Amino acid sequence: MPEHIVSSFDEDLDELRTRIVEMGGVSEKMLADSTLALVKRDSALAQSVIAADARLDGLQRDIEELAVLTIARRQPMAVDLRELISVIRVAADLERIGDLAKNTSKRVVAISGETQPQKLVIGVQHMSDLVQAQLKDVLDAYVQRDDAQALDVWQRDDRIDALYTSIFRELLTYMMEDPRNITSCTHLLFLAKNIERIGDHTTNIAETVHYLATGVTLSVDRPKGDTSSFTKAPADPSS
Amino acid sequence: MPEHIVSSFDEDLDELRTRIVEMGGVSEKMLADSTLALVKRDSALAQSVIAADARLDGLQRDIEELAVLTIARRQPMAVDLRELISVIRVAADLERIGDLAKNTSKRVVAISGETQPQKLVIGVQHMSDLVQAQLKDVLDAYVQRDDAQALDVWQRDDRIDALYTSIFRELLTYMMEDPRNITSCTHLLFLAKNIERIGDHTTNIAETVHYLATGVTLSVDRPKGDTSSFTKAPADPSS
Repeated sequence: MPEHIVSSFDEDLDELRTRIVEMGGVSEKMLADSTLALVKRDSALAQSVIAADARLDGLQRDIEELAVLTIARRQPMAVDLRELISVIRVAADLERIGDLAKNTSKRVVAISGETQPQKLVIGVQHMSDLVQAQLKDVLDAYVQRDDAQALDVWQRDDRIDALYTSIFRELLTYMMEDPRNITSCTHLLFLAKNIERIGDHTTNIAETVHYLATGVTLSVDRPKGDTSSFTKAPADPSS
Repeated sequence: MPEHIVSSFDEDLDELRTRIVEMGGVSEKMLADSTLALVKRDSALAQSVIAADARLDGLQRDIEELAVLTIARRQPMAVDLRELISVIRVAADLERIGDLAKNTSKRVVAISGETQPQKLVIGVQHMSDLVQAQLKDVLDAYVQRDDAQALDVWQRDDRIDALYTSIFRELLTYMMEDPRNITSCTHLLFLAKNIERIGDHTTNIAETVHYLATGVTLSVDRPKGDTSSFTKAPADPSS
């Protein structure tokens, strides 16, 4: 970024914050559009999400480069350094959210011509709505340095995990009932998992906001509501 | 880390390198053991992998804390700063590898009592062998600052992706043939996906080694061999 050579430290920080907000906007739209593409069976919309990912990748590279350059050039002290490290972390999480929305959209394209159990699509949509609210709230918390809101997002992730586990069980049941739906159900399974992982990235961002606001790293284990990896059979919810 | 207040910058770097190597060793063992637990149907071994993850998480927190503290305290210039940023990145990838090996082990426990198609278990084992070799090579490349070896790892990931795609197709076929195997096959599917994602983290580390050795970020898209998200049906390999 040669154009920044003469800028001040505050200008560098402003530039970085602006780009993080831009990344946030792009990743929110990618998540919303990938879900809408699923619900509406809109392959063209899914393709536009796939195409949008390159922009997010480019933004992340710019942010990381400028943040490292700023650290090298300005030699910031504790609080400012924390802000720069946080910028790098948040950009990495947003980039991963974009990757997951892109992968989701590829799967929407793959199953566009197949039967999709509506009950499950609605379940995935509901999960995505929750994750979108989480992403919006954590980006607001980041901009406002609002530790209370960040902790709230961090706590709420277990609802998403629990919903994912119930969708997982239902998908298994559905596949067993009619093997012809296995291909589309498998894609739905990974698609739901992608959205659950986007939820995990919003909790990572919440942890970064907490670190930014307090200087302390959250070290307690987050409450886990996703027990699907322990699920032995769909009829055995206690496992 | 109050005990480091009087240490030199080189001592800080040595300490960080030592801990990265330790994290590398723990994550290699977790990956190897989770796969062995699958092949041997050894739930006790799988439980030991699940238990080992807390150690990796703790190491990552220590590394990140010490790296940030070192940046703040030593105000390093370009090359040293690059090393510290790299340490933070590599630690994050190794921590994620541990999470994935832990999730794999939970799935091994879940399916331990069920029929497991041997051909698929062998396919997963083969994929894990490739990923273990990648992880070993990229950790060596990191220690030796060997850019050529890092680029080699980075290129080789497409073999793992291709193998994952073929396992994915075979698992779908297997589920369609006999719906009673859907639960175990679904876990195998996520398990294979976890190992493929560990492969992605080894390429991330390869990119970091390249950045460390050259100061330049790899910006070209890595060759992608995993086309499973575009797979429409197991009998349609052209899609």
